[in-house]
Amino acid sequence: MLRRTDTDRILLAHGGGGSLTRDLIRDLLLPLLGSEQPELADSSPVPGHEDIHLTIDAFVVKPLFFPGGDIGSLAIHGTLNDLAVSGAKPLAVAVSFVVEEGFEVDALKRVLRSAGEAARGCDVRIITGDTKVVARGDADGLFVITGGVGAVVRRVLPSGGREGDAILLSGSIGEHGVAVMSAREGIAFETSVESDSASVWPLVEALLRGGVEIRAMRDPTRGGVAACCNELADSSGVSIVLDEKAIPVKAGVAAACEMLGLDPLTVANEGKVLFFVPERDAGRAVDLLRSLPTGHSAAVIGRAVSRRDHAVYLTTRYGGERIVEMPYGEELPRIC
Amino acid sequence: MLRRTDTDRILLAHGGGGSLTRDLIRDLLLPLLGSEQPELADSSPVPGHEDIHLTIDAFVVKPLFFPGGDIGSLAIHGTLNDLAVSGAKPLAVAVSFVVEEGFEVDALKRVLRSAGEAARGCDVRIITGDTKVVARGDADGLFVITGGVGAVVRRVLPSGGREGDAILLSGSIGEHGVAVMSAREGIAFETSVESDSASVWPLVEALLRGGVEIRAMRDPTRGGVAACCNELADSSGVSIVLDEKAIPVKAGVAAACEMLGLDPLTVANEGKVLFFVPERDAGRAVDLLRSLPTGHSAAVIGRAVSRRDHAVYLTTRYGGERIVEMPYGEELPRIC
Repeated sequence: MLRRTDTDRILLAHGGGGSLTRDLIRDLLLPLLGSEQPELADSSPVPGHEDIHLTIDAFVVKPLFFPGGDIGSLAIHGTLNDLAVSGAKPLAVAVSFVVEEGFEVDALKRVLRSAGEAARGCDVRIITGDTKVVARGDADGLFVITGGVGAVVRRVLPSGGREGDAILLSGSIGEHGVAVMSAREGIAFETSVESDSASVWPLVEALLRGGVEIRAMRDPTRGGVAACCNELADSSGVSIVLDEKAIPVKAGVAAACEMLGLDPLTVANEGKVLFFVPERDAGRAVDLLRSLPTGHSAAVIGRAVSRRDHAVYLTTRYGGERIVEMPYGEELPRIC
Repeated sequence: MLRRTDTDRILLAHGGGGSLTRDLIRDLLLPLLGSEQPELADSSPVPGHEDIHLTIDAFVVKPLFFPGGDIGSLAIHGTLNDLAVSGAKPLAVAVSFVVEEGFEVDALKRVLRSAGEAARGCDVRIITGDTKVVARGDADGLFVITGGVGAVVRRVLPSGGREGDAILLSGSIGEHGVAVMSAREGIAFETSVESDSASVWPLVEALLRGGVEIRAMRDPTRGGVAACCNELADSSGVSIVLDEKAIPVKAGVAAACEMLGLDPLTVANEGKVLFFVPERDAGRAVDLLRSLPTGHSAAVIGRAVSRRDHAVYLTTRYGGERIVEMPYGEELPRIC
């Protein structure tokens, strides 16, 4: 159990979305919960009703309010996105609040309003909920947990990527993580960076409707594009070569990462998707994504290749090559 | 907003399942989330797939382990029960963990194993999950949040109760609350009391299969039978007269409530159901419930009557009558 760490206590890094999170899921959660799934996917089909997917996600982001969003809208988008990247059109959301005694009612109102607006903006209904209050000091203000159900349009598994596939990214990276970090640390960067928090369903739907064969996809949240590529490479049994020059990074994010000592590839996104598509569909897929506001900087950023190590490589701006490791997990706690 | 309290801070009582929780839901959650539901029901049909119900519930019980259960099994049973009392057969569960840094891996293993066993015991699969870790001091050990989906067998609304209906209770009351309080306070009572945490679906299914017309039902969790009866009376537009002599209370629970100054009617249950059924079906319904292990002490405990105040009355053991008020909410924090 938890072989890589041999710890008898849960570490902050267990929640970071990197290799330690993966170990926790594979070594503890799956065997002890008795799940028959090979892995706890972002969302899974309901037994007996395989056309319906179920997902759940807890949001513990700190601070609760950040440029471009807050815990309310994030909790809606995050859960819708877990459905979307499985190929399921989001239908309804359930919201649970764990509130610390003494939390400001005005702040709760802002969060509720924001969650409601996000749901309406995504044409999804919040149909049920739950509220628990714990004593002062027993939680940090507010946690929001969302469950969601969606209807499968075309089921896409993370294992479907193949050698030769083009790797597409729906837009520029690192904005959510940088926005939260700047709010948390009270840092202002030259260019202000806003979270990209948004539903990715319109992006997925555009490709499905346009007849693009999506072989695998995932949203690069905790652990960023680095974790996401490593997971997809591992699940699909391929290696990936990314082209640093092709990866869109806004100037503000680049500057902030430089200042904070972060690799933009490991910083969380909350409105982006990484797609594996057949080479022949790549150009059309980019055009379809770019026709949407949230996909305007979509690009082909790499290729799936047949090297045996199932690793992720980056061809750097200067022509070198480095391995993009699976992040360990402690870089950015409470980013979502 | 929050008229009854005029507070600008969330109080512990907002989470107690009493009138303050009801106000929070009616005055804040429903309007600001923009839900079109008249109330946030225990579980609700998915738009476009009305035969499928979705629910969510957060568990913050303290301590995590108590006689008769723990947060893992409780989180499974609680969410299955939200589906069951809407008339939906539970199909699948999603589990989310919010863990405090430093939490013992061995305790987490016990919880995971218990959740897995509870799900298997209820013939339901845990199909997806999520884990977040927050820094030491930012949560109290472990919170578990479960989402669930079920297939509607016969949709039952809390508003279906009618004047003249018999009120049935599936078994003795107060065991969960007393078990948790005794573990929390380290009190040993003469007779040890175990939580009644269990799935109520077999009870509901027995009545549905037996052709009993269930007009309304709910599980008396936070706020106990007192809150549950007040909610059902309010939703159905009837008053209720309960017969104290008919309400099953085990000796250990009675003694503990006496000692702790609690009214057993306000203490939480986690494996019981309160049913409204037509008088003609009452005897058969009790027989059907008693044929099951979790329903062996089922009884008719009262009647729905036509008094205009939609209140709950108790005919006491000594022949008097008193009003059973909706609990305010601060009696037993973190009971589930």
